[in-house]
Amino acid sequence: GALQRRAREEGVPVLILIEGWEGANKGRLVNELLLTLDPRGYRFHAFERRGDEEYPFLLPYLEVTPPRGEFAVFSGGWYAEVLLRRLLRGEERSDCTAAFRDICAFERQLADAGGVVLKFFCHIDRKEQKARLKEREGDLDLAWFVTPEAWEENKRYDDFLLCAEEMLSSTGTEYAPWTLVPATDFQYAAWKILSTVERVLDDCLARKRHPAQDSLLEGVSDGESALLSSMEPEGAMEDQEYDDRLSELQRELRSLELRVFREKLPVALVFEGVDAAGKGGAIRRVTESLYPMNYTVYPVGAPDDQERRHHYLWRFWKNFPRDGHVAIFDRSWYGRVLVERVEGLCTPEEWQSAYREINEMERHLSDYRTVLVKFWLQIDKDEQLARFESRGGDPERSWKLTPDDWRNRDKWDLYQTAAAEMLLRTSTSYAPWTVVATNSKRLARIRILTAVTESIRRALGQEGRRKR
Amino acid sequence: GALQRRAREEGVPVLILIEGWEGANKGRLVNELLLTLDPRGYRFHAFERRGDEEYPFLLPYLEVTPPRGEFAVFSGGWYAEVLLRRLLRGEERSDCTAAFRDICAFERQLADAGGVVLKFFCHIDRKEQKARLKEREGDLDLAWFVTPEAWEENKRYDDFLLCAEEMLSSTGTEYAPWTLVPATDFQYAAWKILSTVERVLDDCLARKRHPAQDSLLEGVSDGESALLSSMEPEGAMEDQEYDDRLSELQRELRSLELRVFREKLPVALVFEGVDAAGKGGAIRRVTESLYPMNYTVYPVGAPDDQERRHHYLWRFWKNFPRDGHVAIFDRSWYGRVLVERVEGLCTPEEWQSAYREINEMERHLSDYRTVLVKFWLQIDKDEQLARFESRGGDPERSWKLTPDDWRNRDKWDLYQTAAAEMLLRTSTSYAPWTVVATNSKRLARIRILTAVTESIRRALGQEGRRKR
Repeated sequence: GALQRRAREEGVPVLILIEGWEGANKGRLVNELLLTLDPRGYRFHAFERRGDEEYPFLLPYLEVTPPRGEFAVFSGGWYAEVLLRRLLRGEERSDCTAAFRDICAFERQLADAGGVVLKFFCHIDRKEQKARLKEREGDLDLAWFVTPEAWEENKRYDDFLLCAEEMLSSTGTEYAPWTLVPATDFQYAAWKILSTVERVLDDCLARKRHPAQDSLLEGVSDGESALLSSMEPEGAMEDQEYDDRLSELQRELRSLELRVFREKLPVALVFEGVDAAGKGGAIRRVTESLYPMNYTVYPVGAPDDQERRHHYLWRFWKNFPRDGHVAIFDRSWYGRVLVERVEGLCTPEEWQSAYREINEMERHLSDYRTVLVKFWLQIDKDEQLARFESRGGDPERSWKLTPDDWRNRDKWDLYQTAAAEMLLRTSTSYAPWTVVATNSKRLARIRILTAVTESIRRALGQEGRRKR
Repeated sequence: GALQRRAREEGVPVLILIEGWEGANKGRLVNELLLTLDPRGYRFHAFERRGDEEYPFLLPYLEVTPPRGEFAVFSGGWYAEVLLRRLLRGEERSDCTAAFRDICAFERQLADAGGVVLKFFCHIDRKEQKARLKEREGDLDLAWFVTPEAWEENKRYDDFLLCAEEMLSSTGTEYAPWTLVPATDFQYAAWKILSTVERVLDDCLARKRHPAQDSLLEGVSDGESALLSSMEPEGAMEDQEYDDRLSELQRELRSLELRVFREKLPVALVFEGVDAAGKGGAIRRVTESLYPMNYTVYPVGAPDDQERRHHYLWRFWKNFPRDGHVAIFDRSWYGRVLVERVEGLCTPEEWQSAYREINEMERHLSDYRTVLVKFWLQIDKDEQLARFESRGGDPERSWKLTPDDWRNRDKWDLYQTAAAEMLLRTSTSYAPWTVVATNSKRLARIRILTAVTESIRRALGQEGRRKR
């Protein structure tokens, strides 16, 4: 009650997860907790036990993380899913380890952004569990809830116990600790949960947190990077040659798209670049060849009110592609280390940790089969001026030119420095950048379509091998 | 392009639906349309052909209606669903008629709120359809898309044609007309769609619309209504009796909840009332007995930025219960005819048409099995003063009392008039109001729990009969 109001005033997002054995009365324990909260400030999320979905498994949970000042209470979720995959679908131990690594990264990101993450594991022993399942089966109203999986859990209690212990030890971190709740006695368990929430929140709100500044700044290159000046030589392209290559590539892309759809491969294309470098035109050459039900273009501008109250990556978490969909980002999460850095919209600590956070996120996407293709579109300063002036003079296109564009141009060097550092720090084996010189629009479009088709073809090839 | 920018400036939401035969190239036609639009201002929604979902069938579409100034383009959707139910699941013609009635009401509401609704039906004849399906089957990449349903449509072309004609004639309205698109020639069809969108939008934006004032004001009762003063006599309740009745009702509610869940019956409880009438306490007595995964409490305050850009009912459309879920609204869509009316937050025309619009919406919910229970909680003016003063004097509860509460109290008579008219105009057979005097909190809570359990029991009984 009172703590909830203080959390709201301080703008602290609070995430509470209730996990535990079948029969541990998790549902009733959650309700005890919810009844102490003001409904205006919490959302409750119950996740059915799953384990068969294919998309990056954290996405559904990322989407419902709490905004600043609110509570999100989860029953079941990311941990249950990992355990289920391991125990019921026989996934490898190493898959589990990778999943726990991604979970820790995710929870750390929430905590670093000022959030509180609280995890409870409700424990009962094998005998108690058996007795409770039996008792429920005897009750006409409740028998329905006793699933075969619950009995499976009881039969293989020791296997589950081993996995649960491994989970607790490898994901119990300083920023997101587990609390073990003995749940044989309901009253005690409820008290344990409520008092822990109260104590941790009280601590958190009392403490003004000053994160130690770490030395991320080391090794940052200064001034314009070699990456941007060492681009391949420019050239023109004849009408006929361009038209032929373009329609050939578009035909190929359309055919690949159908395979992407059948194989349920998620594809994310990221377009970043200098203003007026031709992002819009390049995106159109891609979407022209796609079926509208299979792609979505996400133009990224300043975050709106709702987005501002969430983690800065939340608005992308929501929109990552699933199951054979192509998501095209016109500007992206890299805004954090470009415009937000240059315009001072976030602190240096914030954009410096963004490199790691973005890499973690992209690795998670890539581990779960997402094809990530990132383009940086570059023109030189003279060409930009020429394009601005041509836009300004054309009444049909003058709306494309805003005062912001001129302001950004004044900060050309700052933006180039930010871009160079971004390219250095976020070019990874699983999500490399493709830098494209777009002084010649035609060459650039051909280059982009080629990179897209090649990346998809390669991913489909790996897919084929994976299945054999 | 240019029209889209004008629509944005004028804040006009635009809804475009592309319907038609299998094989009419709807997908490619949609893409032609999308390519002319700026991705910042549209969302595209492709709906798979369904026909087996049980919840009020319009909800998924209502949820994605466009906000002011944006386009929403649909391929498939509400019409396809109705036709499919009729033709493939053998629903009655009368169900179809009811569905068309609800669709017309929905489209009219969008148009009345200043929106533009454009519907296209892409037509090819039976021979052409057969040829196209055959051709696709011959193409390795495309064969996958030719479903058994598509062939079924070709085989029973005449049945489908009859139904489609009925649909076009019964839902082609002044505010949401159909445009028939001959789709044998792709270029012509694309031109037809684009030019129609352009013409209609241009007309709409040019015309400043002055809806004729209709005489809804007739027959409005004035001053405090008999409904509010003729409530059943107050009384006290002994501790023991209250505790016994309360736990008995809560036990019953919990048992009913499990049946609601099994039968996948949606339940919506609405709590409106005078400030300090005890809505919060009454809601807690209901939620105490429920499983947290089966209920959600929606506290309703002033709409946020995003909500303001949508139809005023949109934020409720999103949250209506589905499949065995209990949604509890702490204040509700009736704010339109209460606070928004009294405080002048909408025009008289707007709150006057809200009675009809709300009744239409509730009928749709009720037709699709939603159990709707609406409570008006009433205390007298002296009791309110006493409660305000007791809240103000208690530091633990003083946050519950805001300056707004005192301001609303000054307008007591205006609010009572609005409430009386609301109760008169929106008490329907499918969604009646229950007026509860809450000077005695205990009696009131028992009364509310009784009404909730009775309504659910009755609905479950009908459900049982429906199935036999």
